[in-house]
Parts: sequence; structure tokens; C-alpha cells
Amino acid sequence: MVVLPEPMTPAAMYVPVVRAGEIAFVSGQGPIVAETGAMVVGRVGESVSIDEARAAARLAGLNALAVLRQELGTLERVAQVAKLFGVVNAAPGFNRMSEVMDGCSELLVEVFGAAGRHARTSVGVSGLPFDLCLELDLVVALHPEDRPSDGG
Amino acid sequence: MVVLPEPMTPAAMYVPVVRAGEIAFVSGQGPIVAETGAMVVGRVGESVSIDEARAAARLAGLNALAVLRQELGTLERVAQVAKLFGVVNAAPGFNRMSEVMDGCSELLVEVFGAAGRHARTSVGVSGLPFDLCLELDLVVALHPEDRPSDGG
Amino acid sequence: MVVLPEPMTPAAMYVPVVRAGEIAFVSGQGPIVAETGAMVVGRVGESVSIDEARAAARLAGLNALAVLRQELGTLERVAQVAKLFGVVNAAPGFNRMSEVMDGCSELLVEVFGAAGRHARTSVGVSGLPFDLCLELDLVVALHPEDRPSDGG
Repeated sequence: MVVLPEPMTPAAMYVPVVRAGEIAFVSGQGPIVAETGAMVVGRVGESVSIDEARAAARLAGLNALAVLRQELGTLERVAQVAKLFGVVNAAPGFNRMSEVMDGCSELLVEVFGAAGRHARTSVGVSGLPFDLCLELDLVVALHPEDRPSDGG
Repeated sequence: MVVLPEPMTPAAMYVPVVRAGEIAFVSGQGPIVAETGAMVVGRVGESVSIDEARAAARLAGLNALAVLRQELGTLERVAQVAKLFGVVNAAPGFNRMSEVMDGCSELLVEVFGAAGRHARTSVGVSGLPFDLCLELDLVVALHPEDRPSDGG
Repeated sequence: MVVLPEPMTPAAMYVPVVRAGEIAFVSGQGPIVAETGAMVVGRVGESVSIDEARAAARLAGLNALAVLRQELGTLERVAQVAKLFGVVNAAPGFNRMSEVMDGCSELLVEVFGAAGRHARTSVGVSGLPFDLCLELDLVVALHPEDRPSDGG
């Protein structure tokens, strides 16, 4: 079973999750330990190894699920993870963003099963807020409010 | 009260806003003065200061609202700003994208109140069309056509 | 008439297309020839010319349509292409991402007519998976399942 961290508060003028009808948009999440504020910073392929970055992608994914659960009350309202957008703070020449973001993708399938299988776009950039080594956001489809997720 | 600029015409083969059901997708907007074509170009943290970049984020946000109003007839059709994606043309080492994009986030709350509180992802990149210092796009949830935004 | 390539299998832990209600999210697609695995790699403005990049954007667009058709059975279920997100692997100083992504935008209008006119955001980044010269994804609005796309 996956244990979620404390949901984090955005660093700036926005909110962690917005619902529009039966779609939830999760704000960009980084590899930050909510309890301590510790962050995984640096460029992947330089000061951050691929294994460290994969773990960071899982951590950012856990943060995404934590704010989503905070917003929805329960992750059982999630009908399908629709889209993962993954942004890797990449050293020049680094091109293994896909392997890095698998750290989050695997988490999503672990937590939601088939409903966690998502579309994905992964890119490399030259800089991220707070020098985070990666950032990711989610678009999630929800079960309608009046329809229990487990019943017919 | 916020006065919107003239809505701009896309520079290439796309349209400013597309509606899909009750969601509107706004194309990437830059800090361009519609009336004159003047653009805020350069890298933030190099030739563009944070204060200039925050003002540029507000300007790009105004352009987003201008094309949205053009498409919808009135911004009263906006039920909720769902997502802001902000892309900063960042100098090497620059990591304060969040502060920059607050320039747009504050505008959205100023214009829409609680309905302007959005999910957000901000990243830094090494280049943007026309060397713009930033670019942003919006996903916006709309009130259903047959339901007035101010009524029963 | 546009002939689509074989739909490709994602390189990692995700799926090519996810449907959430009447919206389909297409995973990031690159300029890869599905039949041979040949890829257009390198930075645009350095080893890849604008003309080559425009053709690569068209190829990536064809790959997007191929996986979309595979998911939907037929592209006639597409009601509207809502959003194209285009990411160019850009040489330092390169700022003509819009011209590059027109290669995909033109394809979408060629295939879908007015329903192919989309919102778009184009950015430049310093690195992409496998050193691809560009990557793009789509958000597509679908006709409801119970409503034929060609009838009343």
C-alpha cells in the first residue's frame, strides 16, 4: 500500500487542484518532502543521477496524489489518470527523460491499476523553480459526484 | 477595473481559442502589445528583470483574456480558470519562475475572484518564439450555454 | 488523402491515448518512422534545418493521428482538435518554433478541415527524449459515442 505524504501548499498565487466538471487539474509538483521542505535539486545527468531522478519523480507523484486526495476527500473518486506532463531539469546532452518519468508512471499504475494508465509527455528544460530536478502535473478524470466509484 | 487590450491574431496556423464542450483552450500568449506589436523579448535573469517579467506575465494574461472574451462574447461565461501553464525564457541559473508567473496569476484573481484561482505549472526554457521573455496558456471551464452565469 | 503510418508503441510506462469522457489526450509523439524506427534527431537551428523540422512536425502529427485512430477505430469520431502542444529541441538563439510547428498544424487542417483548427502553444527546450528534434501532443474533443459523426 502506498502511504501519501502531507499535501503541500503552493509556493505562490495558485491552488493545488482545480476541478472543472469531471476533470481535475493538478498543479505542477516537485520532488519536495512536505514534512521537512527538503527538495531534490540540480540537473539530471549532472548532479542528479537517473536513479535519484526516478525516485524524485515518484516523490513528486506522491505529492500530486496527496493534494488530489485532499481536494477530493478520497482517491476513489479518480476514474482515470488522463495525462502526465513531466519536465526534467536536464543537463546538456541528457536525453533519458522517459526513464526518469517512469518513476511517476509506475506509481500511478501501482495506486490505480488500469485507471492509472495515462497519456504522457516528457520534456527536458534548462531550469525549474527552486532548481528542482523535475516537475510534473496531472490531468485526472473523475467519477461523477452522484455515482459511487465502486457501484452500479 | 481591468481594461483588456485588442485581441491578437495568431502568428501562425492556429486559432486563439478552441472550445470543447464546456472547456476552452487558449493558445500560448506572449507579452505583446497588440496595438503596436511591441514585444518584451530576452531572457529573464539576463536582459529582463524579475519586475519586468512579472509585468510581462500580466500583459500576456491580458492578451489571453482578450482573445477569450472575443471568443465567448463576454468573460461572464467563465466558470473557473482551471489551469495556467507558464513558460519563462530563463537565463542559465534563473529559478524564480514562480514569482514571474504570479504576475498573471494575480491578474486572474483580480478579474475573476475565486473563479480565477487556478492550478498552475511554471517552467523555464532556453528559447521561445520571437525571443519572447515568456509565454503562457490557459484552460478555462465555462458555464453551460443554456445557463446564465448570473442567474438561477 | 493522408495515409497514416503504423501506430507506435510508447517507449515507456504509459499509453498512447487516454479518453476522459469526450476528450482524448494523446501522448507526446516524436518524428519517428514507425516501420523502421528511424528518428529525426538533433537540435533545430543546428543540425536540423527549419524545413527538415517542419517535415518532422508533420511526421509527429501523423504518428499522433495513427494512435488516435487506433484508439477510436476511426478519426470520424474527432469533433475538434482542441490543443496542440509543440516542443522544439532548439539550438541556442533559435526562435522560429512557430514555423516549425506549422508542419503539424497544416496537417491537422488538411485532415479535419475546420475541425482541425486548434489552439496551440509552442516552446523551445534544450533536450528531448532520444534527442528527438521535436515532440508534440494533442488534446482532442470527440463526438459523443451515441451520436454518429456524420448524421443528425
